[in-house]
Amino acid sequence: MKVSKLVSQRFKERPADCVIDSHALMVRGGYMKYVGNGIFSEYPILRRVTTKIEKIIREEMNMIDGQEVLFPVTMPADLWDQSGRYESVGSELLRFSDRNNSRMVLGMTHEEAAVHLVREYAQSYQQYPFMIYQIQRKFRDEARPRAGMIRVREFTMKDAYSFHTSQEDLEKYYDECYTAYNRVFQRAGVPEVVTVASDSGMMGGSVSHEYMLLTAAGEDSIVICTDCDYRANMEAAATTVENISKGVKELECIETPDCKTIEDVCAFLKAPVEDSCKAVVYQRNMDDTYVVAFVRGDYEVNETKLRNLVGEDIHPAEITEDAPLVAGYIGPYGISDKVTYFIDNSLKGLDAVVAGANKEGYHYAGLNLERDLDSVEYVDISKIQEGGICPCCGKKTITIKRGIEVGNIFQLGTKYTESMGMTYTDSDGKLKNPIMGCYGIGVGRLAASVCEERHDDYGPIWPISIAPWEVQICCLRPDNEEVKAVADEYYNKLQKAGVEVLYDDRKVRPGEMFADADLFGVPIRVTVSPRNLKNGCLEISTRDKAVKEMVPMDEAFDFITGLKAKLFADINEKVEDYK
Amino acid sequence: MKVSKLVSQRFKERPADCVIDSHALMVRGGYMKYVGNGIFSEYPILRRVTTKIEKIIREEMNMIDGQEVLFPVTMPADLWDQSGRYESVGSELLRFSDRNNSRMVLGMTHEEAAVHLVREYAQSYQQYPFMIYQIQRKFRDEARPRAGMIRVREFTMKDAYSFHTSQEDLEKYYDECYTAYNRVFQRAGVPEVVTVASDSGMMGGSVSHEYMLLTAAGEDSIVICTDCDYRANMEAAATTVENISKGVKELECIETPDCKTIEDVCAFLKAPVEDSCKAVVYQRNMDDTYVVAFVRGDYEVNETKLRNLVGEDIHPAEITEDAPLVAGYIGPYGISDKVTYFIDNSLKGLDAVVAGANKEGYHYAGLNLERDLDSVEYVDISKIQEGGICPCCGKKTITIKRGIEVGNIFQLGTKYTESMGMTYTDSDGKLKNPIMGCYGIGVGRLAASVCEERHDDYGPIWPISIAPWEVQICCLRPDNEEVKAVADEYYNKLQKAGVEVLYDDRKVRPGEMFADADLFGVPIRVTVSPRNLKNGCLEISTRDKAVKEMVPMDEAFDFITGLKAKLFADINEKVEDYK
Repeated sequence: MKVSKLVSQRFKERPADCVIDSHALMVRGGYMKYVGNGIFSEYPILRRVTTKIEKIIREEMNMIDGQEVLFPVTMPADLWDQSGRYESVGSELLRFSDRNNSRMVLGMTHEEAAVHLVREYAQSYQQYPFMIYQIQRKFRDEARPRAGMIRVREFTMKDAYSFHTSQEDLEKYYDECYTAYNRVFQRAGVPEVVTVASDSGMMGGSVSHEYMLLTAAGEDSIVICTDCDYRANMEAAATTVENISKGVKELECIETPDCKTIEDVCAFLKAPVEDSCKAVVYQRNMDDTYVVAFVRGDYEVNETKLRNLVGEDIHPAEITEDAPLVAGYIGPYGISDKVTYFIDNSLKGLDAVVAGANKEGYHYAGLNLERDLDSVEYVDISKIQEGGICPCCGKKTITIKRGIEVGNIFQLGTKYTESMGMTYTDSDGKLKNPIMGCYGIGVGRLAASVCEERHDDYGPIWPISIAPWEVQICCLRPDNEEVKAVADEYYNKLQKAGVEVLYDDRKVRPGEMFADADLFGVPIRVTVSPRNLKNGCLEISTRDKAVKEMVPMDEAFDFITGLKAKLFADINEKVEDYK
Repeated sequence: MKVSKLVSQRFKERPADCVIDSHALMVRGGYMKYVGNGIFSEYPILRRVTTKIEKIIREEMNMIDGQEVLFPVTMPADLWDQSGRYESVGSELLRFSDRNNSRMVLGMTHEEAAVHLVREYAQSYQQYPFMIYQIQRKFRDEARPRAGMIRVREFTMKDAYSFHTSQEDLEKYYDECYTAYNRVFQRAGVPEVVTVASDSGMMGGSVSHEYMLLTAAGEDSIVICTDCDYRANMEAAATTVENISKGVKELECIETPDCKTIEDVCAFLKAPVEDSCKAVVYQRNMDDTYVVAFVRGDYEVNETKLRNLVGEDIHPAEITEDAPLVAGYIGPYGISDKVTYFIDNSLKGLDAVVAGANKEGYHYAGLNLERDLDSVEYVDISKIQEGGICPCCGKKTITIKRGIEVGNIFQLGTKYTESMGMTYTDSDGKLKNPIMGCYGIGVGRLAASVCEERHDDYGPIWPISIAPWEVQICCLRPDNEEVKAVADEYYNKLQKAGVEVLYDDRKVRPGEMFADADLFGVPIRVTVSPRNLKNGCLEISTRDKAVKEMVPMDEAFDFITGLKAKLFADINEKVEDYK
């Protein structure tokens, strides 16, 4: 491909609306174009990257006996009625009506379609296990798309579904898929991807893992133990808090004028925030009834845990005039029985806390939950903190990092097969529901994640396995016949040798050509210039700056093909570990 | 792939709802599954076919300098507002609202997205011509999906868009694409595909061609001249009618009780139907006002021509009580001036016709349009008939066949670039709108069309280029160790040699195995059985029955690979013609 013919445009300025580097570089480099909120088109340069990622994923899915299928993007609602998700999933599920006013949905994931496809096929235990997958567009009506291709509304995803006759068999296959995923990320050039325990969310099931690329630009918080192997998404990390006994006090109701936040109250009462009880109020999406979470003053509510406990979707509350709550003065003692409330583990073992008195302008001091309330049940609804206690080894060794989720694997159990009536006859003659696993990788998000992890100030540094091209030729003086002849020759020779070449044949200044080359991020660069030719050399360098050499003309071809082989070998060597 | 592991199911009975053979066979063979009205999932066997078709299309598009991109399935309505199609396209365009009540559409074609992607890129004439294409899902809310994968609502399509600075350049590229399309259909194994002139419909533009596979199951009527090269879709074929003078008569108004159809009236008046004027009534979709088409009694209205003439969408009318029309008695003489009417060419030159008198229970006889009406303008709004006059050579040599549209190419002109404000600076320094072409192929429809054209009563006969596998091994007695060992050996040896093999390793009766093999439609079949082995042979046959031989074991491997090479050569030899 010649740059003069490449459909793409490049910009010098970082776009103002880009919060992360990969987004900025992929806009500046002409990889993607904004079409609508969370919706993008891919230019040829990005389509080449995503095509290569799709190929790697296909190969690895086929290696673990995956069979490629294709489910539709649009589905009749009745399919989602069967699983109950038409009702239970929030507004991320795009519901619409067709010309006949039939209710439909846009596929955001395809568990229902997968069960529908194989429900009649797999009626005997002898047909199990099997796995089907597709690479298909999805639509998820995110409230806040952000960060370019990282959090979008429409995206290409590989989603796989496996079916088993026992939990052991699922776990065995889950491990195979776990390895296949590691191979995918290695091959895509991001071996840094780690797995973390995750919350299963709307997918259902119990065990699940997310594949996280740890990077400051990530939108997920990852909990990591610096001492043992524990790694989890913040959403799923269990919180343990050890409170030290400081001695009980008498309960007093104190006027606390103009103290609206727990910090205000503690400052006013000269009490440490760790000895206070903070109320955070939510409402159920279904009926707007109130749910109050009480956590220690210096802790935050983990909404995922709370949501799982409530068993339905919730949102931060707006406390209305007629609410059975006194905004700013909510506490567990004397709270209206019209309100559901939960008391977090972080409040356990505190002898005397400051808490709202459920009366305008008043707080309690000296509240002892176990003494003063009729009954107390502690639950885990707070976020673990930096330096907190590791749920696995029990040491205070927790650190928190940021990550981008590039893949996930779930053990779904029989949630879908049971609700959708999929059964098989087992070897004992009994009808049973198969056990499912599901496995996703977002293609565009992986491309963007690699860019986020592998870039400098000037552009992406693509791993050769997913780079849009393997070699870029910069012809610095296309108006010089000799220079152009050499550049043309290498363009043809390399392509004949099966090398993917991007050839910058434009009559532009070297500065512009190199700036563009940095944005293209092609791993190997061959610079043909009058000065190099005078020395009988080509300049051969790598985008990551590891190589920069003047190579004599008679060695250049072998040098380039050897460098290509080496870059691939560097990646594949690491992949071998996962066989 | 082993059949025992293949996710698919087969049925003996032809499903009652299948009107064409390919649909029935693709359901019976486990290729596709109904998900909703006009919406299907693809099983692994079909996904293998469509993947191969996609690969052929990609290769041919890349050969004519196409650059692959990806547009989103979902688009904000404002993009379609820009071209005017948000309003102008009928209810096939699926409009919906997202969670923020923003108006959106599901892409049924991507002219708007294509212009949006390159609008800022291609500002200089030096960047032209270029072509971008994608292979992507589309949704078209068809009123009447039918015939399996032939007319669906959701489908995979390759759509390409070319941009040019002159009509000549577009025509040059259009010819290249024309050739590339012929190569695609040759390579897919259906060289019978012919091109026909077509109506541009909602796409806009002037010149357009459809690629038609002529087959009785087709839903389009194709007009073909048996003497010259003329071929056109019925929608686009010009109708000429030669009427012979029979002498004028006096105009009379005659009572025609209980005569509701033109045939009734002609029978009652003993007039030939060719001397009558039939009224067909439509309503504009926008405001329900009436449009009447008058054609010769034995002709049919061509609604596409009428729609183009009216300039907006119309539908067959319901004539209400207060309509300015007398149902059953509508004629051009004395018709209400509140009604738009058109008089077809087929009525030109008739001296005396029977026509409605616009009065309940009465018809005119002896009506001479040119004598009795204030003014007459004849237009072409009727369907050409078998034996009709060829618009090209003028002979009465028209024959009408059925066809399935498997692809189309349009010269769009500046319809989209003008409305969406895409300009470039030409060599003369002037700002101009680029000229566009667009080019579509439906992937699933092509697969189904090949099946429709290449099948027998027992299953598809896939051309090797798009067959799900190249060779099928039927192991007739897997419980016989020797037989199984030979079958296993060939399975491994052939796969190592790069042959795609489907291996039926199931312990089923030969009858079932062969019936299933016919449904798989794999071109080369290798049968391993105790009897064959006793003779030191394998039976090697082709699905199309051209080959059926007992081949000695020591020659079998070469025979199979040689047969594969020959089947590919047979296809590619024909493709060479299109270079």
